[in-house]
Amino acid sequence: MDGAGRIEDVIATLQAEFKERCSVNADVRDRHGRGESWHPVAAPDMVVYPQTTEEVSRIVCLCADRGTPIIPFGAGTSLEGQVQAVRGGVCIDLSQMNAIVAVNHEDMDCVIQPGVMRADLNAQLRDTGLFFPIDPGAECTIGGMVATRASGTNAVRYGTMRENVLGLTVVLADGSVIKTGGRSRKSAAGYDLTRLMVGSEGTLGIVTEVTLKLHGIPEATAAAVVNFQSIDQAVETVIQVIQLGVPVARIELMDDVSVDAVNRYSDLGLSVAPTLFLEFHGSIAGVQEQAEMVEALTSENGGGAFEWSDKAEDRSKLWQARHNAYYAGLALKPDSIGLVTDVCVPISRLADCIRETKADLSQCSMPAPLLGHVGDGNFHVCFIMDKDAPDQIEEAEGLHQRMVKRALSMGGTCTGEHGIGLGKQELLEDEAGAAVSVMARIKQALDPDNILNPGKIFTSDSLT
Amino acid sequence: MDGAGRIEDVIATLQAEFKERCSVNADVRDRHGRGESWHPVAAPDMVVYPQTTEEVSRIVCLCADRGTPIIPFGAGTSLEGQVQAVRGGVCIDLSQMNAIVAVNHEDMDCVIQPGVMRADLNAQLRDTGLFFPIDPGAECTIGGMVATRASGTNAVRYGTMRENVLGLTVVLADGSVIKTGGRSRKSAAGYDLTRLMVGSEGTLGIVTEVTLKLHGIPEATAAAVVNFQSIDQAVETVIQVIQLGVPVARIELMDDVSVDAVNRYSDLGLSVAPTLFLEFHGSIAGVQEQAEMVEALTSENGGGAFEWSDKAEDRSKLWQARHNAYYAGLALKPDSIGLVTDVCVPISRLADCIRETKADLSQCSMPAPLLGHVGDGNFHVCFIMDKDAPDQIEEAEGLHQRMVKRALSMGGTCTGEHGIGLGKQELLEDEAGAAVSVMARIKQALDPDNILNPGKIFTSDSLT
Repeated sequence: MDGAGRIEDVIATLQAEFKERCSVNADVRDRHGRGESWHPVAAPDMVVYPQTTEEVSRIVCLCADRGTPIIPFGAGTSLEGQVQAVRGGVCIDLSQMNAIVAVNHEDMDCVIQPGVMRADLNAQLRDTGLFFPIDPGAECTIGGMVATRASGTNAVRYGTMRENVLGLTVVLADGSVIKTGGRSRKSAAGYDLTRLMVGSEGTLGIVTEVTLKLHGIPEATAAAVVNFQSIDQAVETVIQVIQLGVPVARIELMDDVSVDAVNRYSDLGLSVAPTLFLEFHGSIAGVQEQAEMVEALTSENGGGAFEWSDKAEDRSKLWQARHNAYYAGLALKPDSIGLVTDVCVPISRLADCIRETKADLSQCSMPAPLLGHVGDGNFHVCFIMDKDAPDQIEEAEGLHQRMVKRALSMGGTCTGEHGIGLGKQELLEDEAGAAVSVMARIKQALDPDNILNPGKIFTSDSLT
Repeated sequence: MDGAGRIEDVIATLQAEFKERCSVNADVRDRHGRGESWHPVAAPDMVVYPQTTEEVSRIVCLCADRGTPIIPFGAGTSLEGQVQAVRGGVCIDLSQMNAIVAVNHEDMDCVIQPGVMRADLNAQLRDTGLFFPIDPGAECTIGGMVATRASGTNAVRYGTMRENVLGLTVVLADGSVIKTGGRSRKSAAGYDLTRLMVGSEGTLGIVTEVTLKLHGIPEATAAAVVNFQSIDQAVETVIQVIQLGVPVARIELMDDVSVDAVNRYSDLGLSVAPTLFLEFHGSIAGVQEQAEMVEALTSENGGGAFEWSDKAEDRSKLWQARHNAYYAGLALKPDSIGLVTDVCVPISRLADCIRETKADLSQCSMPAPLLGHVGDGNFHVCFIMDKDAPDQIEEAEGLHQRMVKRALSMGGTCTGEHGIGLGKQELLEDEAGAAVSVMARIKQALDPDNILNPGKIFTSDSLT
């Protein structure tokens, strides 16, 4: 059977089994062939909606038998082309696997299916006094967050998905099912397959169940914004907060362009200036102590007065605005698309890295708000490009390449949290060098026919 | 060339190059063929002491060419037979690679060679205001701690080696050198090879450089011991402390047998009763707040009064005694050897697991102190056996097997921190099931000739 014949056969078999839980509709396929950034749509041949691990396994077995590519899909919020079906094939949409299987209140963990939305998990947890802190901002699924090793605003205090996934159920490329990790807080039992799967972007297996660490909702929470005359002052404050070991829950930077964009989009009314968004978690006394330390550092660095959000709904509005910053950026121009960079550097180099980046951006022909999870040394520039303007993509990509080379020269990484996907394969080689060949050997050992999300992470050269 | 001829050839080549930095002396080989537990000595054919990554690479290339096994060696403190040269070969003793390459004070990280001793690192760091918290108790090297994914008393607050290694330099089975991870606090750049190497017990590569996360020495530190009438009361207190989210730095349990042993060995004069050893880190106010919360919970559970160690030297004596608990156990009987179990369970099951274990131990014919890092749900029973008493090994191993099956039935793991080595290969299969075959495929992809620490982690069946 040739390629076309094989995919027709897979489609027919899946239609017979999954009936209305699969689709070849062009709109549905298109919607599953893109994330939230500029990478062109690449639609899969079919989308299927399994409800159990066993169903995922059966789909994978069928595709493995026919050599058909498989692309796992959560909510389509990735930024580096992770869900694009660049070689066609079957998209496994996990949104119907959205059960919270167990909340183990006493152990502060939970077991969930990968299609659970981050926000829904926290809504369900509210009465338990627990929460899941990792918050990349997007309306994403937990499975997608596992796949990209997501982090976001709270990572400075609570870590990333790397630190907060305890175990996984994974369907491998041959359809077999394994469990990795478990519910104990630590283990030295063999290779750390959990951490290997976290961040593997669907190229090593399909995650069908996730055990997550949860955290107690703090006794007290306080959030504030504070602005500075220069971005240097803001960054210097962040560096000192981190070096002093103040356990801030969030410490987010927005440059003046970002603040202007969120003001327009979310009606915030902030002064248009470099601004830190802060949140403190702890006991009442602990929060007060942290806030006083950060206020003192802010003042020493020439920052303004803290504007506190005392009510929960004000905090919620503030963080929603922060999370919508990317959409606020896109709204600066009609019919725009975004290219979002994602470097992360050691904190001591953050001021240099941001200063040099801002200098570069002064030459940029398009809006380019800068913002980030600066407590981790992680920041983004969102290039707001006209749709169908290859020269703007070229310009943004050029500035992006310079940002990454700068970050690498400072001991940093080409991606703090968005992953490699289609967009950073060469940059991964620049960063990891010969280690990419070790990644490739692992990929080949676990997926010898390269059916799991093919074309992602690795350049075609590095997989041969 | 036959096997004997090949090893003679390797020895001659290494002697020519490394001269006095290698040895075939029987005592030296014996000392490198054992850890600190009952597993019989299995001496390597030669011990070599490289000083650079390039030297390690050359040794590995030579051994790879001849199919000679390679066993990396730190300080010989492992407990599951990780350094035994069960197939002969060349032991690479990394103790001469003990340089602290860089301390990046502003970024709170450091780069070190693997032979650096944990205690020496902290001695060197003292003036920087930083420390490396992971403390398994043994006089071990950082490289050994990487290899076994070590943790110990401080892990409840600071995490294990999994959370505190930022990057590695690794010599692979073909002698090639890779760097994994880096100095940024987070990254989503490809597969997490750092976490794959951490805990791989020398079976995937030889670690020749380690980048570690450091932490600020807390403003205030306070340590205390408190005893209870029953072990149940002590464990219940621990569970409540953890569930309340009190950020204790250490919370260690010793049963009455352990306390009696450390009293004798370290002249502590504690009441012989189930006891918690506690340490609090934070600001002055924070430590006081934590201590008050734990004292209140202790009192509710019928515990006694806190006995504080106010001076640094008293704290140091207390923790040294805790760390020497294994040797204190061994000193209970002349000419004894130890079999140390290492289960870890979700905290909600800790009381059940310890209660059932203690009931089992009441039938045991030998001293069997119980102690552990209970804040993580991790505890040990040290069976103190006569040397050359196979019936005692059999009895201890029987009780050990029952402990592990109990822990697994409670969602736990067969090893919280000691690793698999020779001692737990079947137990790993019980715990991880089909996931072991994934580990084996990774091993085969990275070390196809099985020269890196062969015979460890995997049963011979699982590697074929």
